[in-house]
Amino acid sequence: MKNIGFIGLGAMGAAMARNLLQKGFSVTGYDIRPEAAEALAKDGGKAARSAAEAARNAEALLLVVVNAQQAENILFGDGALDALPKGAIVALMATCPPGQVAELGARVEAAGRRFIDCPISGGMAGAIAGTLSIMAAAPKATFDALLPAFDAMGKKIYHVGEGFGQGAMAKMINQLLCGVHIAVAAEALSLAAKAHLDQKTILEIVGGSAAASWMLNDRGPRMLESDPIVTAQVDIFVKDLSIVLDAGRESKAALPLAAAAHQMYLAASGMGHGKKDDSQVIRAYKALNPA
Amino acid sequence: MKNIGFIGLGAMGAAMARNLLQKGFSVTGYDIRPEAAEALAKDGGKAARSAAEAARNAEALLLVVVNAQQAENILFGDGALDALPKGAIVALMATCPPGQVAELGARVEAAGRRFIDCPISGGMAGAIAGTLSIMAAAPKATFDALLPAFDAMGKKIYHVGEGFGQGAMAKMINQLLCGVHIAVAAEALSLAAKAHLDQKTILEIVGGSAAASWMLNDRGPRMLESDPIVTAQVDIFVKDLSIVLDAGRESKAALPLAAAAHQMYLAASGMGHGKKDDSQVIRAYKALNPA
Repeated sequence: MKNIGFIGLGAMGAAMARNLLQKGFSVTGYDIRPEAAEALAKDGGKAARSAAEAARNAEALLLVVVNAQQAENILFGDGALDALPKGAIVALMATCPPGQVAELGARVEAAGRRFIDCPISGGMAGAIAGTLSIMAAAPKATFDALLPAFDAMGKKIYHVGEGFGQGAMAKMINQLLCGVHIAVAAEALSLAAKAHLDQKTILEIVGGSAAASWMLNDRGPRMLESDPIVTAQVDIFVKDLSIVLDAGRESKAALPLAAAAHQMYLAASGMGHGKKDDSQVIRAYKALNPA
Repeated sequence: MKNIGFIGLGAMGAAMARNLLQKGFSVTGYDIRPEAAEALAKDGGKAARSAAEAARNAEALLLVVVNAQQAENILFGDGALDALPKGAIVALMATCPPGQVAELGARVEAAGRRFIDCPISGGMAGAIAGTLSIMAAAPKATFDALLPAFDAMGKKIYHVGEGFGQGAMAKMINQLLCGVHIAVAAEALSLAAKAHLDQKTILEIVGGSAAASWMLNDRGPRMLESDPIVTAQVDIFVKDLSIVLDAGRESKAALPLAAAAHQMYLAASGMGHGKKDDSQVIRAYKALNPA
């Protein structure tokens, strides 16, 4: 495995592609913004002028795009799959609904190419440092073939299963926990305000106890600010918890906490705060529970 | 502050009383089981044969009992408040509904004694090691008077407010987070099982990511055991989330996640698992979402 086609050179994709270059891979990159591919070329990669060109000589085609629809358009609309050599691997690294991932995977394999469902987590910091978590699902031989590339971009690489969609589901389980943890932190702080308790003191108490979560300690302090910096938008959890609940519907699984948390993100977005930091889901709680 | 009356020498109370003795306090202990007070006497304390006797010469009367009803019986039924010198302090350390605590506090103060609402967290390990967290609400002078005793039993001592019931509310906010974090961990693992993902791998992924909570990492592994040791019972969260929701009702605060989580503990208890480890709330999820 040496030649990699890389589609999607946004902030995270560009950082990941550079880590591949540094580990000796040959990377041909494409992005709808030509300047992104040209920047990659300056760092030792090759700039492709189309998705199909990025795929042409690739042993693996990495898709770091926004959603499943974009991935489908690139593969089937823009001709990237036809251009990709038979037996090469399509690696879908976007966060997508498990059902759609399973369908895409089946279509790619039916066309004589291999597929791996491998969403990432760890954010920009992880992309730059090469410390992403990668949750991959594919037959073991496909996973093993991509492992050197994964190791160049990530630190915790998990082979979670052989079924397409299982990687997506692992990512969704991660998002379910993150989304509920942020919402319940807001719920707890809104109760504290209602009881005329000092929210900062309460955060200090619960943040250092068995009541702590990673999200409580990260987002909690920003819940006490009136207009904090945006690290991730409210609308990301509107979307991700939608995907979680859709996955629950498909498999007929009841997810009462995820469903209740989703309502609070929806309300916060409906109040006009969708582009604000996700800690601002607390604004929906403040509307419900004025202190 | 030297003479302390101590009522409630169960596992936690006995450990706390011993820490007071070790720091030079004179402790007169009472428990409905006479052998518990006799054991304290062997360690340098004094054994009282009634709650009133424990209160007689105390500067502070510590109540480490099960609930507010027990505290009321001891103070008003068993005559402990009448026996307590005027101006001495009643310290209620049990986990009680904020409204009942406020009422008890008002009655104690009306009788010419002082009151402090000071529930604890940190469990048996914290009681033994003297590292409990104490969330205290009372006028500052009362808090300051008890601080040396608190320091003997705990490590993180917070003065959360002056209003009786605010300490209880701080404890309830802690329990709200703990209860929801355990339930959502079970929800996430039940979705993983449904998707035929290996739950141990999923726990490893989420436990080391932004999706982590203290409870996820503590209770999660026990959710994968068929009959784990009991560190805290399902029924404790049946009770504590009831108190949280009652406090929400009293102050007219909507707590959608706490309410949804409570349903799962109720169901687990109704299935006959109330005395099992609280990680076994996952049994309610397994009943809903068979893999």
